[in-house]
Amino acid sequence: MSLTPRIDGDRLLGRLDAFARIGATPAGGVNRQAFSVEDRRARRLLAELALERGFTVFQDGIANLFIRREGTDATLPPFLIGSHLDSQPTGGRFDGALGTLSAFEVLEALEDARAETRMPVEVVAWANEEGSRFAPGVMGSMAFTGADTAAWKSIVGADGALLAAELEATITALPEAALRPTGMPISGYVELHIEQGPSLEKEQLPIGVVTAVQGTRWLEVSIQGTSGHAGTTDLAYRRDPMVAAIAAIHRLQTTIMPLDSSARLTVGRIAARPGSINAIPQSVAFTVDIRHPRAEQLNVIEAEVRQVCAAEAEAQHCTAVIKRSFDMPGAAFSPDMVNTVEEAARSLQLQYKQMISGAFHDALFLARVAPAAMIFVPCRDGLSHNEAEYVEPGDAVIGAHVLLRTAIMAASPR
Amino acid sequence: MSLTPRIDGDRLLGRLDAFARIGATPAGGVNRQAFSVEDRRARRLLAELALERGFTVFQDGIANLFIRREGTDATLPPFLIGSHLDSQPTGGRFDGALGTLSAFEVLEALEDARAETRMPVEVVAWANEEGSRFAPGVMGSMAFTGADTAAWKSIVGADGALLAAELEATITALPEAALRPTGMPISGYVELHIEQGPSLEKEQLPIGVVTAVQGTRWLEVSIQGTSGHAGTTDLAYRRDPMVAAIAAIHRLQTTIMPLDSSARLTVGRIAARPGSINAIPQSVAFTVDIRHPRAEQLNVIEAEVRQVCAAEAEAQHCTAVIKRSFDMPGAAFSPDMVNTVEEAARSLQLQYKQMISGAFHDALFLARVAPAAMIFVPCRDGLSHNEAEYVEPGDAVIGAHVLLRTAIMAASPR
Repeated sequence: MSLTPRIDGDRLLGRLDAFARIGATPAGGVNRQAFSVEDRRARRLLAELALERGFTVFQDGIANLFIRREGTDATLPPFLIGSHLDSQPTGGRFDGALGTLSAFEVLEALEDARAETRMPVEVVAWANEEGSRFAPGVMGSMAFTGADTAAWKSIVGADGALLAAELEATITALPEAALRPTGMPISGYVELHIEQGPSLEKEQLPIGVVTAVQGTRWLEVSIQGTSGHAGTTDLAYRRDPMVAAIAAIHRLQTTIMPLDSSARLTVGRIAARPGSINAIPQSVAFTVDIRHPRAEQLNVIEAEVRQVCAAEAEAQHCTAVIKRSFDMPGAAFSPDMVNTVEEAARSLQLQYKQMISGAFHDALFLARVAPAAMIFVPCRDGLSHNEAEYVEPGDAVIGAHVLLRTAIMAASPR
Repeated sequence: MSLTPRIDGDRLLGRLDAFARIGATPAGGVNRQAFSVEDRRARRLLAELALERGFTVFQDGIANLFIRREGTDATLPPFLIGSHLDSQPTGGRFDGALGTLSAFEVLEALEDARAETRMPVEVVAWANEEGSRFAPGVMGSMAFTGADTAAWKSIVGADGALLAAELEATITALPEAALRPTGMPISGYVELHIEQGPSLEKEQLPIGVVTAVQGTRWLEVSIQGTSGHAGTTDLAYRRDPMVAAIAAIHRLQTTIMPLDSSARLTVGRIAARPGSINAIPQSVAFTVDIRHPRAEQLNVIEAEVRQVCAAEAEAQHCTAVIKRSFDMPGAAFSPDMVNTVEEAARSLQLQYKQMISGAFHDALFLARVAPAAMIFVPCRDGLSHNEAEYVEPGDAVIGAHVLLRTAIMAASPR
C-alpha cells in the first residue's frame, strides 16, 4: 500500500545545510570546484545517503553520479532528475546543490511513500557543470549526450592540475558506485534550479517554468582608427574609433533588446588603446554577448551587429574587425514536458510564469536527446555565482514539491 | 649701413641637425628631457653659438635660457622669441627645437645684416616645457610669468631624481650665462612651433597664425549600476552602466564638436568593471577631454557633460559621479600681435589661416603678461610627441622667415 509522496521540507533544508558545509567559505558561500577534494566529499556524502536508503549508485566515465530507484516496467529507460554539485570558486550554496538535493528528496519521498513509478527514476549529479576549474563547463552532460571528449584528456586546470588525473582520482574515490558506460537512453529529464536572475523575485512568483535555454554567442569587435592629439585634431580630420564604437553600441543597445523581449545583448568589456586621457584612441575593442532561444534569430542579431559595426566604423573612416569567439546553440524544451511541469505547479495552486533561461544548464544538452524541462525558483536579488546567493527556505521547498509532482507524472505516463 | 635681414636656410637646417644629435634615439627621434645631461648639452651648445656671435647669455632661477641682442632704445623691455629645447622621452626633432633655433637664426640674421631694432630682441629657451620627466610641464614660462614655485622644490622625477638638485646642476653647468631674476617686463613674445595636428598639411597651407590657445579640462566620469548575468537579466531589470555611458558619450559626441568648430571633446579612456564578457558591468568609467579657447564656453561644455551623464545614468537607474581632474585655462592672443604675424606672412606672399592651438605652449602663459602670438608650420601627418615627427625643410625655413619679419616689425614699432 502506498501513501501520497510528500516532500519533507526540514530534511531537504538540513541536507542543503550539510552540503553547504563541504567547501564552505568564510563569507557563507562554497568553493567546491569540479573534481576537487571538496567535490569528491560531496559526491561521497550523496552516495552514502543513497546507499543507506537502499538505492543503487552508479557513475560513468566523466564522473556523472546516478542514484537509481527502480520502476515497475523494466523495459523503460529511466526518468532523470537532478543538477550538479560542483560550484564556482566563490559560489553560492544553491546553484546546482538545490536541484541535486531536491531530486534526492524526491527519490526519498517516493521511497517514504512506497510509491511506484512505471519508469525507473534516477537522480543525477552532473560532473563539472561550472567549468571554473576545468573549462569548458557542462562537461558531464555534454559527454552523456555524445560529445567528443577525446580532446579533454589534455585539459589543464586553472590550478595547473591535469583533468585526466583529477577525474580518475574522483572516480576511484567512490568505489561504491559501479561504473557504467557514459550515455544511455533516458525517458526524460527535469532540472530544478535557482533562476540566477531577478524576475521571479521582482514579480513575486514562486515558480518559473522554463520553455527554452537561450543560445549564446560572443563577438569580439575591434575598431581601428588613427590616434591623434585631443586638442590639435579638428573634427574633420579625426578617424576616431571611439566615436565609431560608441555609435555602433548605441544603435545596438537601442534596438536589439527593446524590439525583441527574447533577445539579450550585453557589452561587458570595452577598452581603448593607448588609453590616454588627451589622445584620440588608436583602437577601441569591445565584446558583445548576444543570446536568443532561436538559432535563426541569433543569426539575424549577429548579422546586425556586424553590419552596424562596419557601417559606423566606415562613417568615421575607421575599420572594424569582428570575430566570433564563442557559439553555444540554444534549445527549446519539449512542449509535453513543459506542460507536465505547468500541470504540477497548477496542482499545487502555485502561480508561475513561462520563461527562457538565459544561462546554460545541463538541461540544454539533455534536451537534445530526450524530452526535458526546467523548474526555476527565485533567488534573492537575482544573485548567483556569488557567496551571497540566497534562496528563501520556503521557495526551495516549493521547488522540490513541483519537482516531485512533475517526476510522479512524467515517470508514470498514462 | 644695414642690409635687409635674411634667413640662412642652410644654417638653420644644419643647426636643427646638430641639435637633433643631442639625445638622438635609434629611431630618429630625440630623448632630451628637462634638466637631463642631454638637456644641459643642448643649452651649452646654444649658449656657445650665442657667445661666438657676441650676444649676451643669461639664465634665471628655473633655468630659462636667454640670448640678448641689444636694441636702440635702452628704455624698452625686450621683445622675446623662442620656444624650448627639452623633449619627450621618445620625442621628435622639431617640437620646441624648431622654434628655439629659428629664433636664434632670426637673431643671427639681424646680426648678419647689422639691422637695428628699437627694442632689444631676446631668444628664449623655456625650461621644462614637456613635463615628462618632472611634472608639471611649462615650468619655465609659468615661473617667468609669476607662478608660485615654492611647491616645486620637492618634486621627484619619473626617474627618481629630485627636481631641485637637477635644476641646480643644470644652472651651474652653464657658468657663462649670468643669473638674473626670474621674470621681468617684456614687450611681447612670438613663438614658432610645429602644428602638432594635421590641418595645415591637409589644407596645404605653409603657415598657421595662432589666435588663441585652447583651455583644457579633464573630466573623469564613473557610472555605477548593478552587475548581472548577461543571459538571465531581462531588459526591464537591468541597471546597466554601459548603456548609460554609451548613451551619454553618444549624445556628447554628436553635439559638442559638430555644433562648435572651436570645441574639442575626446573620450580617450574607457573601462568596465568587472569586465566580464558575459556580465552586465557593475560600473563604467571614462574620461572626457574638453577644450575651448573661451573659458565661459568651457564652463558651458562641462555643464553639458555633467547634465548629460547624470540624465543618462538616471534613465538607466544608475548613478554618475563626475570629477574634474585637470583645468588649464586658455588664452586669446593679442589681436595686434596676431595682425603683425599676418602682415609678416602677407609680406612674404604666403598663404595662411588663423587657427587655435589645441595644445598648451609656453606662449599660453606669456599671453597673460604681454602681447603674444604663435606661428605654426605643418608637420607630417600631424604627428608629434613621436620619434617619426617630421617637418619639410622648406616649411621650417618658411616659418623662420615669418618669425624674422614679425620680430623686425614688432621690435621696431612705428
